[in-house]
Order: sequence, then structure tokens, then C-alpha cells
Amino acid sequence: MKMGNTADRKMTIVVFSGELDRALAAFNIATTAASMGTEVTMFFTFWGLNIVKKERGKVGEGNWMKRMLNIINRGGARRLKLSKMNMAGAGTAMMKYLMGKHRMPSLQEMLILAEEMGVKMIACTTTMALMGLSEKDFIPAVKEFAGAATYVGNALESQVNLFI
Amino acid sequence: MKMGNTADRKMTIVVFSGELDRALAAFNIATTAASMGTEVTMFFTFWGLNIVKKERGKVGEGNWMKRMLNIINRGGARRLKLSKMNMAGAGTAMMKYLMGKHRMPSLQEMLILAEEMGVKMIACTTTMALMGLSEKDFIPAVKEFAGAATYVGNALESQVNLFI
Amino acid sequence: MKMGNTADRKMTIVVFSGELDRALAAFNIATTAASMGTEVTMFFTFWGLNIVKKERGKVGEGNWMKRMLNIINRGGARRLKLSKMNMAGAGTAMMKYLMGKHRMPSLQEMLILAEEMGVKMIACTTTMALMGLSEKDFIPAVKEFAGAATYVGNALESQVNLFI
Repeated sequence: MKMGNTADRKMTIVVFSGELDRALAAFNIATTAASMGTEVTMFFTFWGLNIVKKERGKVGEGNWMKRMLNIINRGGARRLKLSKMNMAGAGTAMMKYLMGKHRMPSLQEMLILAEEMGVKMIACTTTMALMGLSEKDFIPAVKEFAGAATYVGNALESQVNLFI
Repeated sequence: MKMGNTADRKMTIVVFSGELDRALAAFNIATTAASMGTEVTMFFTFWGLNIVKKERGKVGEGNWMKRMLNIINRGGARRLKLSKMNMAGAGTAMMKYLMGKHRMPSLQEMLILAEEMGVKMIACTTTMALMGLSEKDFIPAVKEFAGAATYVGNALESQVNLFI
Repeated sequence: MKMGNTADRKMTIVVFSGELDRALAAFNIATTAASMGTEVTMFFTFWGLNIVKKERGKVGEGNWMKRMLNIINRGGARRLKLSKMNMAGAGTAMMKYLMGKHRMPSLQEMLILAEEMGVKMIACTTTMALMGLSEKDFIPAVKEFAGAATYVGNALESQVNLFI
């Protein structure tokens, strides 16, 4: 409804999953919506934080558990795997090859595109604390750090709200 | 809101997952909403494409990678498995047996029902290309083939938008 | 939109997954929204039913298949595992330890909080039948038992609808 009223076109996406295929779906929807004049907010939480972490996460600080979580959760959009048929990396490599062949943007390219289009990316402070992450562990595209109240406030004002 | 205005009752469902349980949830919500006068659009993408593929997907055309993806992704609602407790097929068989015993419609029956009720089923052209699929690989219930812009346009006009 | 109109602030969450991390995300969003004056309805279906089952589910009644499903699906928020990095329980234990250390409420505490805040919890009767569950198998916070039509009716009246 209200297609003519640009101020009303808002979308939020909770990015909970850290898998390549789900991340691609999230960024494809986000950048498409932004290109149509929609104000898009992506809220990264739990495993979704890995998508927007720097490639070298902070390892070596904090207690042994935080360090361990950091080692397992090595960040970076380049390292994500498929949720199905990863086949020890072969499936993921194949998907990336096919994406290149069909001239589709990679996830890293979609991230840059999203930032340039003004898609707001927020990292969830509650799960950041759990995973021993701080603001400096994230790529510059993430400009806001906030909790669930910020997400809920945004969602109540948006037409489209997805949990991926 | 606006329960009295039928024109406003719209729902979209992105069907990303190709698992039996998630497909059942998606079609149960879709057919229930349609029976209540809601205009429902299902947008099949990634593994969700398998739900609406013909049982014999095209194998043998395209390059070796597309063929391989096609063999692994054998289509057909009848072949889907549970996301949990598949137990080498026993869990899935048990679920199907219990559904029959409780006189619940099978997924194939729900697909027919959804089509009869006017649920619009769209296959995502972007992921179709990735998986080496063309329009003739899908069951006739899928009448539209489109990309994310069509989905976003629909979602912005809908009250309920789910990602399953 | 309509932030000033409290009657319009409604949210529904379909809780399909029975994993600890997804359950935490669902209850974090639900309790935050409730604290902001939003009327929240959680609709538990499929594996999500395990979150609100009593710790000792009914075992021993029904046919062998229902009994088997009941044994595998041992209920109780305390027993849920992470969707990733469960590592034979070590990852789940670590997550719980870190939550306690950061003074975050456990899932059991969030359940109590949600009930006190008036979050409506509905168990899906269709999937209850499939899993051989009856009303007495659930914790008292679950006060309503209903099917998809109740969910769809709620969702059409809500601003935010999530499928987790």
C-alpha cells in the first residue's frame, strides 16, 4: 500500500544466518529494494555477524572461550559456506564459479553495493558481547551498533520485515 | 488493520528452503490465507526451487557443473526430506505416514490445492540461472518467472511477508 | 507507521525452529517488543513446540511412532542445542556460560519474562497432532491451542510478522 509515498517505503532484514546462500538472498533483496527507493536496514545478529566481520577477527584477547569462538567464527564474506551441499568446499566453489560465469556480483561486491546505496547495517551488541566482539572487529560498512530495541523500533515503522 | 478491505489483504512468502517440514509450513500458511480471501504470492528461490521442479529435472544438458547440480537437486515435492531427524529417510517416512493417518493433505496435494485457490507461484530467475534450470523444468503451477524486483514490489504492497 | 497508536502495534512470530540460538533470538525480539508496548503473539509449530513442552514429555502413550517422536523430541527450553557449533554439547554449554557471565537472562528466564509481560503463546494444533502431543504436554505459559487460521488472522492485523 502507499506505493506513492517514498517516506513510507521501509524494510528491515534480521540477518541471523552466516551461510553464503542465505547471505546472498538477504543482500539481493536489500540491494534490489534500495534501488527501488526503499530505506533498508539490515540487523546482523548471531552467525550473521560473521558476514560483516573483518577477515582477521581479533584472536588472542579475552578469555579462552572468547578466543575459541573467534577462531571458529573466522569472519569475512569471502569465507562463508553454503547451507547445503558444501561438499567440503566443492559446492561452495562451484556456486561462486557459476555466479562469476553468469556475471552475478559476488557477496563482497554486493556488500560494497549495499553500502554505496545507503543500506544501513547494524551489528547486534547483545550477540557481539556473547561472541567477544567489539566495534573494531567489523568492516566500515557497519556504522551502527545497537540492541533489539533499535531493531523493533525500525521494524514497527517498516512495511517489509524479514528474518533470514 | 483494514480487515474489511479485501484488496489490502496480501501476503508474500519467500520459499528459500527445500526441506519437507518448511515446505509444509509454507503451504499450510499459504492455503489457509488464500481460503480467508488473502492474495498470496510464493516466491521460490535457491533450494525452494526443488519443491516446484518436475520430478525428472533436465539432466544431460549444459556444462558438467550444471549437470551435477541437477543430479543432486533432483526435483519434486515427493522427494523432499525433513530438516531434522531425517534418520536416513525413516523420520521423513514416519512424518508422511502420520500425516496420512491424521488425514492431513500431503505436500503434493497442498500444491494442487494452492494452485486451485489462486496462490501465485513465482520461480526466481536469478537462482534458476545458477542452478542451470529453465522454465520447462517446473510444474505447471509455476506460471511466472521473475527476479527480486518483482518480489520486492509485491512485498511492499503486502501486510504479511515471510521468509521461510 | 502509526507509532502513536498503541492499538496498532502488533507483532507475530512463527517459531518453527527448536534450536537454542533461534529460540533466544525469538524471545529477545518478543520481550523487547512487549516492553515497548507491542502486543506480541508467538505461534509455536513443528520443532518450535519443543521449546514450550514440559521437560518430561508424555512417553509411553500412543502408537510406537508417536512414542519414538516423543523420545527424540524431549521437551524443555533447558535441553535445546545450538544450530551451529554444538560440538557434542560443548558449544551449547559455552554459550550458556557466556550468557550467564554477561548477566543475560537464560531462555527459561526469558520464557517467564515473556509470560509476565503478556506475550501470547499459541501451540499449533496441526503439528501437535503429528507429534502425538496434547494440551497437557505444554508449560502453563501456553494458554492457547490453535491452527493456521488463527495465526493468519493475527498476522494480517500486525505490523511485524517474522518466521524464525
